[in-house]
Amino acid sequence: MSDVIIREKAEYHARTTEQMERHLAVPPWSLRQKIALTCRILAAEGHESALAGQITARGDRPGTYWMLSFGLGFDEARASNLVLVNDDLELLEGDGMVNPSNRFHLWIYRHRPNVSAIVHTHPPYCSALSVTGQPLIAAHMDTAMFYDDCAYLAEWPGPPIGDDEGRIIHEALGDNRAILLAHHGQLVATSTIEETAVLAVFIERAARMQVLAQSIGQVKPIDPAIAREAHDYRLKSRAVAATFHYFARGVLKQDRDVLE
Amino acid sequence: MSDVIIREKAEYHARTTEQMERHLAVPPWSLRQKIALTCRILAAEGHESALAGQITARGDRPGTYWMLSFGLGFDEARASNLVLVNDDLELLEGDGMVNPSNRFHLWIYRHRPNVSAIVHTHPPYCSALSVTGQPLIAAHMDTAMFYDDCAYLAEWPGPPIGDDEGRIIHEALGDNRAILLAHHGQLVATSTIEETAVLAVFIERAARMQVLAQSIGQVKPIDPAIAREAHDYRLKSRAVAATFHYFARGVLKQDRDVLE
Amino acid sequence: MSDVIIREKAEYHARTTEQMERHLAVPPWSLRQKIALTCRILAAEGHESALAGQITARGDRPGTYWMLSFGLGFDEARASNLVLVNDDLELLEGDGMVNPSNRFHLWIYRHRPNVSAIVHTHPPYCSALSVTGQPLIAAHMDTAMFYDDCAYLAEWPGPPIGDDEGRIIHEALGDNRAILLAHHGQLVATSTIEETAVLAVFIERAARMQVLAQSIGQVKPIDPAIAREAHDYRLKSRAVAATFHYFARGVLKQDRDVLE
Amino acid sequence: MSDVIIREKAEYHARTTEQMERHLAVPPWSLRQKIALTCRILAAEGHESALAGQITARGDRPGTYWMLSFGLGFDEARASNLVLVNDDLELLEGDGMVNPSNRFHLWIYRHRPNVSAIVHTHPPYCSALSVTGQPLIAAHMDTAMFYDDCAYLAEWPGPPIGDDEGRIIHEALGDNRAILLAHHGQLVATSTIEETAVLAVFIERAARMQVLAQSIGQVKPIDPAIAREAHDYRLKSRAVAATFHYFARGVLKQDRDVLE
Repeated sequence: MSDVIIREKAEYHARTTEQMERHLAVPPWSLRQKIALTCRILAAEGHESALAGQITARGDRPGTYWMLSFGLGFDEARASNLVLVNDDLELLEGDGMVNPSNRFHLWIYRHRPNVSAIVHTHPPYCSALSVTGQPLIAAHMDTAMFYDDCAYLAEWPGPPIGDDEGRIIHEALGDNRAILLAHHGQLVATSTIEETAVLAVFIERAARMQVLAQSIGQVKPIDPAIAREAHDYRLKSRAVAATFHYFARGVLKQDRDVLE
Repeated sequence: MSDVIIREKAEYHARTTEQMERHLAVPPWSLRQKIALTCRILAAEGHESALAGQITARGDRPGTYWMLSFGLGFDEARASNLVLVNDDLELLEGDGMVNPSNRFHLWIYRHRPNVSAIVHTHPPYCSALSVTGQPLIAAHMDTAMFYDDCAYLAEWPGPPIGDDEGRIIHEALGDNRAILLAHHGQLVATSTIEETAVLAVFIERAARMQVLAQSIGQVKPIDPAIAREAHDYRLKSRAVAATFHYFARGVLKQDRDVLE
Repeated sequence: MSDVIIREKAEYHARTTEQMERHLAVPPWSLRQKIALTCRILAAEGHESALAGQITARGDRPGTYWMLSFGLGFDEARASNLVLVNDDLELLEGDGMVNPSNRFHLWIYRHRPNVSAIVHTHPPYCSALSVTGQPLIAAHMDTAMFYDDCAYLAEWPGPPIGDDEGRIIHEALGDNRAILLAHHGQLVATSTIEETAVLAVFIERAARMQVLAQSIGQVKPIDPAIAREAHDYRLKSRAVAATFHYFARGVLKQDRDVLE
Repeated sequence: MSDVIIREKAEYHARTTEQMERHLAVPPWSLRQKIALTCRILAAEGHESALAGQITARGDRPGTYWMLSFGLGFDEARASNLVLVNDDLELLEGDGMVNPSNRFHLWIYRHRPNVSAIVHTHPPYCSALSVTGQPLIAAHMDTAMFYDDCAYLAEWPGPPIGDDEGRIIHEALGDNRAILLAHHGQLVATSTIEETAVLAVFIERAARMQVLAQSIGQVKPIDPAIAREAHDYRLKSRAVAATFHYFARGVLKQDRDVLE
């Protein structure tokens, strides 16, 4: 034990970042393939609430957006059954019905130019938490990405097909990556489809953790400085991409047709 | 952002309805196939409580009813192993034992001419909620179809094979689409097999949401006007049919023999 | 509605019993096949706690008992990997290690000549309930078979391989069909392997129901007269056999080698 | 009943030990195969939290350690995709990225020469318990191996990639086999890979049991003398090996490529 080298934490952070760049390559999936994979990842995570919820991403041309055809479940997504719409939800490409509930996504894209992908779902634990009037609490290493980065909309404006809902939700979201929507579910909006997918997986796990914890006591808060360090650590882009890749491999083990 | 068009909500509702009519076609399954699919959907949703529970639907001839042969589980249903009975539970068609517990369904059919299909099951969360003496609370977008549309029978009349139970349950049900039965389970009775199936799926999810939420706090009620709007929105017949179709595709991915 | 025939409940009971006798035939499985099926049914129900728990049944010759070889999990049981022992746990037939934990079963067989089969397991919800110091409460139609028929051993005598445990457990069990064992699990002992299997499935479901219910409130007791009627109704031998048969079909759909 | 032989408990213990030595042989798996099996066992038990958590074991040469390549999930482990590192986490053998989070394992190996294998994971129930500020309570036969053998680190030092975390965690662990890490997860460190694997499975089950129990009441403590007897009984090396073997068979039934 005498010759153990003790190093500064910063040195380890640098070494890790360098190694991640080198080792954690992600396949050259197209955007449509990544959207379809995201749909399937969320299906496997139990985000299904029949046909509720949507996954959208900005298309290559400004003012265009990809999304799953309405009527399909997340578990049925393929790269080929997405539709491309303009910012009035008119169909530009693909075959199928445009999901009218996606209108409020457009409000977020308009006001958050750095947002490239949005996931909105009604998974069981977020839904249960959302009817209690309590915001999400990030108090664990695996949920630290939501620390000071998850808003809360305490009032439900009703079924989200009009413009009011878009205005209300984007204002409540502000600059956060995520929001818990009372009586409704959750929404994640970030600058990459990978990060949006990974955070959508973890917001439901965060809600599950909170429900289990609060069923037996209080959630003890974590130190804000450590929480912020962990927040940034969990959001390193290579680690997020590696996590997306891992989840995607899980999907592909079951069914490769998602890429078609 | 300057040229965003803000429309009235009613305009979006109309557009959605029109598109649903056009896009969400459901296969021409026979009534028996839909009943068998409903059995399988509920099996996949965890409604199994051994041989308890029943799924019935009015036959084409007045006073006739289709149901699964007694002794079979929901996961074993096929279009071909249903039996047709008259309103004294006598066998008219098919091969198998008539389920004596279905007698109380007949009471509901008699008093609710608009009811075409009934699902009664004892799923885990409805059962757990049902022993606590608390009614179901609809406080989420996905459970809004039960807002002011789910009765509560606070006393359990015992195993439902006699006529008393039929009288008691149909009276408690009233004009509602659903009822939570204390110490017993749930029942849904609506005008189509699709709606009955979808609501049966969601009443158990609603009970799960309530149990999870109440394990950590109180369920915050939603605004009655919004709840009513959402109730009707969730019950649009095309959306309900699309949801049934989606659930049915999930069953068919596992096992196509259900249609035989 | 005017010509509805209202009958006495007793008439319906008689009709049901007659029809069950006629329709619900169970395949002529051997005792060993039924034991192996029981092991698999309980595995499918989540009763696994590694190698803990045992399923035993009286052999044809007095003072002989069948049980799974030690070291095998319930999901690995086959008719051919059981062992037959005498009432000192000495191996009489079959190949494998006798489970030393089964000694306390022998105490029950000695004192309860009508008991033909015993299941003892440590499933999750019975285990959780068992560490809280609370007895099982039967307050639902599907758990009524435990009404006034499930004892409670409030103190844990330690790992059950000696004779003390046998004495303590059989005394606490008394004439009941089941017992919740504090800090330990559950035990069911009845006159047939079918009934023992079915009750073992349902005692864990009863514990789950109680845990879910008590996490949000109190369990409301049911009327004792109705509870007793339901207790007997749920234990009709043909219905129990049909339930066992149904569960067994579920096992056989996955894997027919259990019968070998 | 008159001729029942009552023996001392010690005699039964001796008989059991002898029979276990004789009957419960484990296949001659290599260390790498056992590590890969452990990864898969924990995946099957729901320990996955994306890429968080690690499983390590001492290599044959002093100061060397096997671990899964970073970027792979537990469910993807094979004997061939492990890496061997030295005690500064430098790659010695195998192809892949060394997991930088494993640094704190090295601190434990340095200070606990008898520790041969470590599992650190963030499974759902340990995680939920860990955010409440409550230590793990061992109060059941199946969790008795943690009685007076599971430490608690009440403060979370942040993402575990520096040396501080190693120092803090190994000091909190002390001589215990396990530790619950607040806001983080669990860690097991024992003298064999088999024991580490089995205890890692059971610490999560212990946390689940505690969460379920505390959601409805208090956990009643068990008698310390009995708890200690059960602790040692559950840790008999042959029984632990048989349990590992059983879990491994479950993995191999799904997928034999883990051994490659």
